[in-house]
Amino acid sequence: MSATASATATQAAILGRKADFPGLVNSDGSPWHYLDTAATAQKPQVVVDAVGNALGRDYATVHRGVYTRSAEMTLGYEAARRRVAEFIGGAEDEIVFTRGATEAINLVAQTWGTANLKPGDRILLSQLEHHSNIVPWQLIQDRTGIEIDVCPLTADGRIDLDAAERILTGAHKLVALAHVSNVLGSALDARRAADLAHGVGALLLLDGCQAVPRMAVDVAALDCDFYAFSGHKLYGPTGIGALWARADLLAATPPWQGGGSMIDRVTFARTTFAPPPQRFEAGTPAIVEAIGLAAGIDYVTSIGIDTIAAHEAELVRTTREALRRINSVTLFGPEDSAGIVSFALSGVHPHDLGTILDEENVAIRAGHHCAQPLMDHLKVPATARASFGLYSDEDDVAALLRGIERTMRIFG
Amino acid sequence: MSATASATATQAAILGRKADFPGLVNSDGSPWHYLDTAATAQKPQVVVDAVGNALGRDYATVHRGVYTRSAEMTLGYEAARRRVAEFIGGAEDEIVFTRGATEAINLVAQTWGTANLKPGDRILLSQLEHHSNIVPWQLIQDRTGIEIDVCPLTADGRIDLDAAERILTGAHKLVALAHVSNVLGSALDARRAADLAHGVGALLLLDGCQAVPRMAVDVAALDCDFYAFSGHKLYGPTGIGALWARADLLAATPPWQGGGSMIDRVTFARTTFAPPPQRFEAGTPAIVEAIGLAAGIDYVTSIGIDTIAAHEAELVRTTREALRRINSVTLFGPEDSAGIVSFALSGVHPHDLGTILDEENVAIRAGHHCAQPLMDHLKVPATARASFGLYSDEDDVAALLRGIERTMRIFG
Repeated sequence: MSATASATATQAAILGRKADFPGLVNSDGSPWHYLDTAATAQKPQVVVDAVGNALGRDYATVHRGVYTRSAEMTLGYEAARRRVAEFIGGAEDEIVFTRGATEAINLVAQTWGTANLKPGDRILLSQLEHHSNIVPWQLIQDRTGIEIDVCPLTADGRIDLDAAERILTGAHKLVALAHVSNVLGSALDARRAADLAHGVGALLLLDGCQAVPRMAVDVAALDCDFYAFSGHKLYGPTGIGALWARADLLAATPPWQGGGSMIDRVTFARTTFAPPPQRFEAGTPAIVEAIGLAAGIDYVTSIGIDTIAAHEAELVRTTREALRRINSVTLFGPEDSAGIVSFALSGVHPHDLGTILDEENVAIRAGHHCAQPLMDHLKVPATARASFGLYSDEDDVAALLRGIERTMRIFG
Repeated sequence: MSATASATATQAAILGRKADFPGLVNSDGSPWHYLDTAATAQKPQVVVDAVGNALGRDYATVHRGVYTRSAEMTLGYEAARRRVAEFIGGAEDEIVFTRGATEAINLVAQTWGTANLKPGDRILLSQLEHHSNIVPWQLIQDRTGIEIDVCPLTADGRIDLDAAERILTGAHKLVALAHVSNVLGSALDARRAADLAHGVGALLLLDGCQAVPRMAVDVAALDCDFYAFSGHKLYGPTGIGALWARADLLAATPPWQGGGSMIDRVTFARTTFAPPPQRFEAGTPAIVEAIGLAAGIDYVTSIGIDTIAAHEAELVRTTREALRRINSVTLFGPEDSAGIVSFALSGVHPHDLGTILDEENVAIRAGHHCAQPLMDHLKVPATARASFGLYSDEDDVAALLRGIERTMRIFG
């Protein structure tokens, strides 16, 4: 453990941000070893404060008030949109705020999908997708009569783009893939996926939930067409996420939800709609949440996303190395998983492991991770998953390993 | 003004809650006369604190974690659902959390509507509906081929239920009406609307946005079928709202958005769905916002919704009385408007009035209030609207009147 501990200590010194996160201590002041960041990230105090100020002393509605405070809130809300756009290399009017990645993907399925997909068309997903990138397409399949193809995985748990190349035909209108798997941490070669999709005239949607908190993302360089992610996994509040879509696609897409702010003119005879992104943001938006998300992005960029990526890569490396020394552990996913380590302990159900770890102040996720088709592929009902954030360190890894050892003694 | 001032002083003494609201002061410490509560309510510090704690020291995801903090957060989230249900007289499993009232109405339109409406069917809306209760139905009209009828208003700006009785036929499947008008403050006789709808076999949806913060609502007593409202107008956070629907209706309604948490079992061959309300809550919910909304409801019930209703009624009475004495003012809406006073000042555009009032630290709303068909009916492009909350008092009314007098001098 000493080489491992020393390597992670170096990374921890680079970051050492635990004190910024009020959620990382228990009520008795003891440290909480939170290894469930792939489910949702803890929030730095600057995000909590940004939300508190926006909800308290600075609060007003947006886009409608003729008074100063509302104008200021509108500036803050639209600045948040610019901040999100900059962070992923998109343009301001290509960002639609949604409740989260799930709503972003449903928005594409129910608007672009309903308008553009017809019987005989096909879309390509993969075996490792989160339910949020499967079920919206199944619901649209029922409505449009398309066929869904499933891209298999490589032996180490990546989306097999060689297989994708063989599957794709001119009938494919969309390829929708996880940029990083929420279970295996495997990162997609997104640029190659874009080239393959575009080669047959299909569009590429990327589910970026697990990518944006842990690697630099530039939608222009990736050449994708839709990019969806959640705010709460990016150190921002719950209740907010974003869809980025190419401006020409958004402009050609009909509205989804009707209501205030998304219209141009309403009469009972005929209603006309606002241009994007407003067309897709019906009703009072999640104002405070958008401002909180911008604060989360500011925090991440103040550290540097590449620094965070290197830090998490080192934690993954040392964790996998340590787990590999335990005979009863099976590791899933590729060696270079992005911030996520899924594993099984032979003879111990992941839920039992999770429960014992909880007694040791270690939080992991145990379950199907909203990826049942991947569980079917792995031939397990569930995995144990440790996932890292920018605040994770060697102490968290050491606590995980101690807890696994204790579990093995109990089940031994 | 002395009788008026004394009456409102009595009410202010009953409530006197301004100090609880950090948003009601300007950055220099001077009072801000916020008369735009119908757009969105300011938040009491207890809501800001509940959100801060849920996002900070108590933060975790819900429904999935095997660790204690996640289990506690799940209890908090589900307790918030119970709190919302209790507040409006519904059952816990009849509450679906949404982003707001707009999403709640779109949910009904796109799920119940798509599954149950067919060419030849009709729905009845009214001339005073908010765009959020018009546009979702127009979008569904395009998809299903239904006809939309528009219930006219009485001379004093109520939905004319005598006219509704004449319009309704066996072809009507839904009546969807504002419980309280967001422009005129006029309250619907909701129980009679329910009886009329049910009399022809139609269902009743109520847009309760402006009702829940200012009058006691009991969905069972009203005998409605769907009830939608926003959290941010009920002293809660942005990004949260609720749909209440009768349990048997929810059970018979197909899902809308696909994703995690709303499924039973996912395979690429066949996916099955969870029972309501989970079926309608895809993805990580607005956890922190739900907990904040429950804190807002706790705050409201600690004062008593009937006390708030009486307080706002008194403010409306005195405001209308004072405005009526000004020759150049036209008052809209009935005398007993719930918390909302819309008016026009002859020769002054409402936006100009709003701008001058802003200089006087008075915030009103000037515009079409997302109710353009009502503006067409009133034959005005916009109105000025002063709307009250539980924190409003005689000082706010006096500041409004001073600002109107100044505006009249300027436009003399």
